[in-house]
Amino acid sequence: MRVIVTGAGGFVGRALVAQLRGACDVVATDLALGGIAGVEGDLAEPDVLARVFAKGCDAVIHLATVPGGVAEDDPGRAKRVNLDATMALVDAAARAGTRPRFVFASSIAVLGACLPQVVDDNTMPAPVMLYGAHKALMEEWIATMTRRGSISGLSLRLPGIVARPKGPSGLRSAFMSDLFSDLSAARAIELPVSPGATLWLMSASCLARNLEHALRTDAAGSVTLPALRVSLADLVAAVCLATGADPDFVRYVPDAQLEAAFGSLPRLATPRANELGFSHDGDLAALVRSALTSLRLSPT
Amino acid sequence: MRVIVTGAGGFVGRALVAQLRGACDVVATDLALGGIAGVEGDLAEPDVLARVFAKGCDAVIHLATVPGGVAEDDPGRAKRVNLDATMALVDAAARAGTRPRFVFASSIAVLGACLPQVVDDNTMPAPVMLYGAHKALMEEWIATMTRRGSISGLSLRLPGIVARPKGPSGLRSAFMSDLFSDLSAARAIELPVSPGATLWLMSASCLARNLEHALRTDAAGSVTLPALRVSLADLVAAVCLATGADPDFVRYVPDAQLEAAFGSLPRLATPRANELGFSHDGDLAALVRSALTSLRLSPT
Repeated sequence: MRVIVTGAGGFVGRALVAQLRGACDVVATDLALGGIAGVEGDLAEPDVLARVFAKGCDAVIHLATVPGGVAEDDPGRAKRVNLDATMALVDAAARAGTRPRFVFASSIAVLGACLPQVVDDNTMPAPVMLYGAHKALMEEWIATMTRRGSISGLSLRLPGIVARPKGPSGLRSAFMSDLFSDLSAARAIELPVSPGATLWLMSASCLARNLEHALRTDAAGSVTLPALRVSLADLVAAVCLATGADPDFVRYVPDAQLEAAFGSLPRLATPRANELGFSHDGDLAALVRSALTSLRLSPT
Repeated sequence: MRVIVTGAGGFVGRALVAQLRGACDVVATDLALGGIAGVEGDLAEPDVLARVFAKGCDAVIHLATVPGGVAEDDPGRAKRVNLDATMALVDAAARAGTRPRFVFASSIAVLGACLPQVVDDNTMPAPVMLYGAHKALMEEWIATMTRRGSISGLSLRLPGIVARPKGPSGLRSAFMSDLFSDLSAARAIELPVSPGATLWLMSASCLARNLEHALRTDAAGSVTLPALRVSLADLVAAVCLATGADPDFVRYVPDAQLEAAFGSLPRLATPRANELGFSHDGDLAALVRSALTSLRLSPT
């Protein structure tokens, strides 16, 4: 089974490629792969796309994206990557394979800012960020291309994924990951949300397992992945416990906008994902262990 | 009030521009305007867009589109017009006005092919044609840009609009209009659906009234317009009565695909549109009169 993984140079992509290799013939691609074997280049370039699909394709896992903050700063680039290149990728997959599996990394950003008391499978997308709108549009496009029989598509809505190695990510939610790296390194950190902020989280290796699982189901449409809902105070305590860091390293400097966007997540029910066999990390201690392990294995 | 009308050279655009002039300062635009004053050119060209918005903008009514059959034959062109140019138009409107009204001509094609027994405001989009998918994506985009406060958008889902002057339209549903022009001219016509086929119809001048009404509400989101649901046999009888044409001019040569796409429309309930003051033609005789009148006034 030949699986194309876009965004393979990112921290989720690396975890996924490492997990898939052995079981699958993986074609990794990204602007920069940082030493992973694969095709480096911009998927918006037809010749890069041609090289990626040169040997055919049984499945695509599409992680590459211009994330939230960067998309707001450069809407033109975000449209080219998040919409145009995604649509070109779907076309290339349809041409290169026989109704190949197409797993799209969507985001809870499609749900927008005004959430009901419980988010469930009936909650309608109402994005506000360009990033969330791009994801919502591509969910709809992939569903259409699936109805047309061109691909076998599934969109997974990802919660906050931890722990991304520290660095410029373009994610306004980077603080969720920086918490892990800073406390591991016994560095002080200012968190831009309050201790009572509620987050939906999943570790990168748990996500990699879910993405591989998505290859093995034939579910279609959009699925909100399960996630652990944790308060920031509980997360800080768990990371301190696991790393031995002093809780006093943490200062809370809440920003109203970030608190609203990333720290006010209500209860989450994901019956469809659960039935399909997707899962979260189990409990907070397991999530923290998994996130810290992948962080130690990541190049910085 | 300065209103930009795209697709103004089409039969709906002409009816709309004629109706708006006097009440509004209309900037008509289309690839070809056929004598109507305005800006001729391709909205995908930045300089054309700049000319259209040169004097500012209070509202846009966006009719221009690459329709069903043509979109399937030339997906690249369809994407440029239906997605890229539409998004550029939204951006230009947001820059040129103060949260201008943006009325988008969407289509019942967003609903797709597997309809429930009654279509109502809760029926979810599930397009199959590229055209319907493009419309669904732009509904979502316009809703997002409205949530962001950039525009005040409303998407109206149009039923079959009659009677388009005979000619190459790129619409696979052209038979609905050809029926009017051929029977008016006492010409024989083959209809590609059965006498029992059910259609959702509205006359072009009724649609023009609804589009103008949309400028005067501040409703947002997507609204399926009311439409008369008629059987093809009843429609033929009404057009024959109004034109004096012999019913024997009509031969039915049903095509399974067209019957499924355009001749199998279930009951339609549009409570939201009704509450907002949108309306259909009233009854079949009125629809036929209105369609025949606009046909006589159209250039051929």
